[in-house]
Amino acid sequence: MGDSNEYKYLTKIDYPIDLRKLKVEELPTVCEELRRDIIEELATNPGHLASSLGAVELTVALHYVFNTPYDRIVWDVGHQAYGHKILTGRRDRFCTNRKLNGLKPFPHPDESEYDTFCCGHASNSISAGLGMAVAAKMKGEDRKVVAVIGDGAMSGGLAFEGLNNTAGTPNDMLIVLNDNNMSIDRSVGGMRKYLVRLTTNTTYNNIRYKVSKRLFGWGILNEKRRRGLIRLSNSVKSVLARQKNIFEGMDIRYFGPADGNNVVELVRILQVVKEMKGPKLLYIHTTKGYGYAPAEEDATIWHAPGKFDPDTGERIKSDSDHPCPPKFQDVFGKTLLELAQKNEKIVGVTPAMPTGCSMNIMMNAMPDRVFDVGIAEGHAVTFSGGMAKDGLLPFCNIYSSFMQRAYDNIIHDAATMRLNMVLCLDRAGLVGEDGSTHHGAFDLAFLRPIPNLTIASPYNEMELRRLMYTAQLPDKGVFVIRYPRGRGNTVDWQCELEEVPVGKGRKLKEGKDIAVLSIGPLGVEAEKAIAIAELKSLNTNPSAPLNIAHYDMRFLKPIDEEILHEVGKNFRKVVTVEDGVIAGGLGSAVLEFFADHGYEVEVKRIGIPNQFVMHGTVAELRQICGMDAQSIAEVLI
Amino acid sequence: MGDSNEYKYLTKIDYPIDLRKLKVEELPTVCEELRRDIIEELATNPGHLASSLGAVELTVALHYVFNTPYDRIVWDVGHQAYGHKILTGRRDRFCTNRKLNGLKPFPHPDESEYDTFCCGHASNSISAGLGMAVAAKMKGEDRKVVAVIGDGAMSGGLAFEGLNNTAGTPNDMLIVLNDNNMSIDRSVGGMRKYLVRLTTNTTYNNIRYKVSKRLFGWGILNEKRRRGLIRLSNSVKSVLARQKNIFEGMDIRYFGPADGNNVVELVRILQVVKEMKGPKLLYIHTTKGYGYAPAEEDATIWHAPGKFDPDTGERIKSDSDHPCPPKFQDVFGKTLLELAQKNEKIVGVTPAMPTGCSMNIMMNAMPDRVFDVGIAEGHAVTFSGGMAKDGLLPFCNIYSSFMQRAYDNIIHDAATMRLNMVLCLDRAGLVGEDGSTHHGAFDLAFLRPIPNLTIASPYNEMELRRLMYTAQLPDKGVFVIRYPRGRGNTVDWQCELEEVPVGKGRKLKEGKDIAVLSIGPLGVEAEKAIAIAELKSLNTNPSAPLNIAHYDMRFLKPIDEEILHEVGKNFRKVVTVEDGVIAGGLGSAVLEFFADHGYEVEVKRIGIPNQFVMHGTVAELRQICGMDAQSIAEVLI
Repeated sequence: MGDSNEYKYLTKIDYPIDLRKLKVEELPTVCEELRRDIIEELATNPGHLASSLGAVELTVALHYVFNTPYDRIVWDVGHQAYGHKILTGRRDRFCTNRKLNGLKPFPHPDESEYDTFCCGHASNSISAGLGMAVAAKMKGEDRKVVAVIGDGAMSGGLAFEGLNNTAGTPNDMLIVLNDNNMSIDRSVGGMRKYLVRLTTNTTYNNIRYKVSKRLFGWGILNEKRRRGLIRLSNSVKSVLARQKNIFEGMDIRYFGPADGNNVVELVRILQVVKEMKGPKLLYIHTTKGYGYAPAEEDATIWHAPGKFDPDTGERIKSDSDHPCPPKFQDVFGKTLLELAQKNEKIVGVTPAMPTGCSMNIMMNAMPDRVFDVGIAEGHAVTFSGGMAKDGLLPFCNIYSSFMQRAYDNIIHDAATMRLNMVLCLDRAGLVGEDGSTHHGAFDLAFLRPIPNLTIASPYNEMELRRLMYTAQLPDKGVFVIRYPRGRGNTVDWQCELEEVPVGKGRKLKEGKDIAVLSIGPLGVEAEKAIAIAELKSLNTNPSAPLNIAHYDMRFLKPIDEEILHEVGKNFRKVVTVEDGVIAGGLGSAVLEFFADHGYEVEVKRIGIPNQFVMHGTVAELRQICGMDAQSIAEVLI
Repeated sequence: MGDSNEYKYLTKIDYPIDLRKLKVEELPTVCEELRRDIIEELATNPGHLASSLGAVELTVALHYVFNTPYDRIVWDVGHQAYGHKILTGRRDRFCTNRKLNGLKPFPHPDESEYDTFCCGHASNSISAGLGMAVAAKMKGEDRKVVAVIGDGAMSGGLAFEGLNNTAGTPNDMLIVLNDNNMSIDRSVGGMRKYLVRLTTNTTYNNIRYKVSKRLFGWGILNEKRRRGLIRLSNSVKSVLARQKNIFEGMDIRYFGPADGNNVVELVRILQVVKEMKGPKLLYIHTTKGYGYAPAEEDATIWHAPGKFDPDTGERIKSDSDHPCPPKFQDVFGKTLLELAQKNEKIVGVTPAMPTGCSMNIMMNAMPDRVFDVGIAEGHAVTFSGGMAKDGLLPFCNIYSSFMQRAYDNIIHDAATMRLNMVLCLDRAGLVGEDGSTHHGAFDLAFLRPIPNLTIASPYNEMELRRLMYTAQLPDKGVFVIRYPRGRGNTVDWQCELEEVPVGKGRKLKEGKDIAVLSIGPLGVEAEKAIAIAELKSLNTNPSAPLNIAHYDMRFLKPIDEEILHEVGKNFRKVVTVEDGVIAGGLGSAVLEFFADHGYEVEVKRIGIPNQFVMHGTVAELRQICGMDAQSIAEVLI
């Protein structure tokens, strides 16, 4: 690995306009340098490596051929967009990527005019790009629009809806389908098989491909030859296959497959396709982690590898040898297996996140009882509903921010029927560096109004185990468990599994002046805050120091009315603490209860304020939101 | 039209088991009688006619061939399921369909064991059916599962996600794709074109079809012959087309097209397909409204025609000749056109509901500026976001209960970027006869926590016009307008278009004892309630009668803080009134404000309680929920 001083081109490329001054033959070196830059940067500043490496050639080719930012590139999931950032005026700031006040984790129009759309959640590029392409058409602008979607994101229903509407609408959009056979874990599903067949159908595609290649080989194509190409392509098509492929059948002109890691070839193809009218799709193959051997070998680990040695590929462990508390994810994963070994009704469902949520533990032990449904959150819930209806007990694990995509499914395909199923919302609350689109901020507020739900959040690892145990007991209905990303506080977490009474909280600490009502592991911050406040009060007012009670509500719904009556009767000041938006969650539930029962209590609510919270470490963000121990203590005093 | 006494079979069929005693040749008469029964019933008790008529033969064939309820039929959207209800023990009660305490508008497991899953919202049948098929497999039960999906519902992303996952999962599900080229209005999109081509590819499909037909013609097929059929089918396939169709490419065995209005043919095909292992799809064509000439001619009008004369097909108008207030839908539709004529940036987007939401008014006048995207709510919002990003001003109209499907799209593809676009939530609040899955109950609660949104609801028709006018002025961001189904109160509604100050409510009536804070047209009930309460108070306590103030909040977000300060300072008793769930909406917002600002006010919240509200007239349901004038008055006194 070299150092940036050695770059022949990259240091001179501030914006795509600089890139476009180069000759095509120079682009492979640009790609090499860009790849090196990404690897070196990510070695010390962790981020999403493998996707970005695989997309280097595509990124260079797109910015070379298209007149960005006038032309629009719409990325689908910003994992792959690091090269794009570096080439669009952000090379100097790339070292701040994902850090507080630094570059955003995913492209966003607020950051750069080259970022055309918010792309934290998968599968939206075709719909958004179509909107832009239609806008160009209606405004009479000769703007080109390219939507770049991975095969993983193609499994999302939104992508299909976009594709389905691309045909009927007047537009000249180009869809680049970037197939690396991976979302985060491997791609799944019928569409994947279909794509493989599209690729491997030798009589059809290879001949087409060779024909195209030969035509490109002639050098600069003029308009006449280009038309010839289309005619030939169509005739090859009609000779070799009576039936159109799905894209062609939808009136989307189809090209490919092409080698997406060959920048010269990509440029030539894009130059041809660019000027064509009507919607078209270019199907390319890339290798996730391309050009960096360790990442090519295990793209799942190298999706977001943490720190590593760029030369050896050795990943650097951040933890010391001391035993440390497990991640909530691992507690979930291990406990799920434990439960599934005893309860044969239990099955696991995950939309493309078996590793991220640790369901892979059960998957490895019981492959037939875990279903990775691909990026398809709505299906994950409805499919779970179908299984629950016929007597299985699904644990469906979806990150909180992605559960927003299954909102109607929770209402319509689960709650209306009071099915026995467990919805596990991983990554609930502030998640840190993945930023505004990934914070699990809204779940408590959007789930609370839904009838028939049980909504719980564990205070710690043991409580997570107990809630999971409780949720799989008979006739518990739709049981939601939300818990955060990352480590808890307890090294010795493998407690006995025992039932928790549904709708019952716990009194953690007696007190008489103020009652703190918390839900979830943010209660640990509240616990610290109480200690801080009481100590400070003892120092300033030794004769009558503050005496603060603490209740872990544990359930948002049904809420523990016994505790709330006790608090309403005995306290005039209450502070609620939750790792979620302040509008509509626990604090609101408490206010509603007090209003309904005529308790006059002063209530302060602590939680995520009414704004999209940026990225940074969880500790930094908690401080900004007034949710850390110190900030809570200030409210208590 | 006859009368039920003339039925040869129908009166003897209480359950499918009775149907199965008949000979195949008798089924056409059963279908005829069933069709007649549906028509006669719906002539006086309005409901969804055309879909149910088209699906009569399929319904009879499915219950004849499959061992329901042990075998599972999963309907997709219950519009088509009236025949199913009549054949499954509900003929006597069918006259109560959609009425308070009567049969549910859509199949639901709470009502009958023959109803396998909730099917009010489209596109969920494949996912739910797959769950059941997997459950059967895992439990070692020889249960068959059939998912019946229309071509309209196929455009929903959830259906695609289900299809995409059908391949990779061990299951023996049969998907029946019922193509009538209609959802409510006509089907749209690329998939539709693809299906048409699948049908019209003569060299491929017709030969296959004829081959199959001949095989069926031999009479009872034994296992050997059945295998022969598959082999032959495969060989025809490989000869005629190198490439598999999308379903086959996804490893879903494909059969069809078949005439879905020929019950004998359907029975023969289903008997063969039923026993086949692995996932398979049968593609059938039916005619929406089949067998009833007026409905065949105009399936959109006859989707849910209201009352009509069964003999002549004349639709009976329920209103007198007196001028009556327009529907909110028509005010929306006409005002949208009016605005679009002046503001060329305005475009319309609707997911398959141009007639229902009256966007067809603009569509007819400006077909190029309205996009019917099919049943695809998520795409509707994200596509609108893309257009808004590049300078158009979309009015995206989605029924409130269906907007639940675009929740993440609102957050991720609109709010994060503060795009200038208008989200119109039609059918907000209690909708009446369409029942629990269709009430727009949750929107205020689920939208309020989202940053950057403006959320408004008009008090009446003129306010709807003013809000629409305001929303399309420059830089208003994501502007939500929610309004109910049905008629308003004002005959003379065509007021001047003028701007409403964003975040500002209106004082409708002075008062000093109680303040009523309402949002939306339910404020009219509150107005009546105030009159009732004040009058009653005057009678019982003439010396100091109640004096009640009334504020139309108009905006849920940003909420009018000036009004809330005024109320907090001057009133000790407040009643909030909203046509939405009581948890998290206006009432909660008011409580939060008072708590944050230290006002000690007794607040009573009126709205939809924490349960799925059944079906009935809006007036009946309001009374049940305590939201009618009389109930509100009782809270005031």
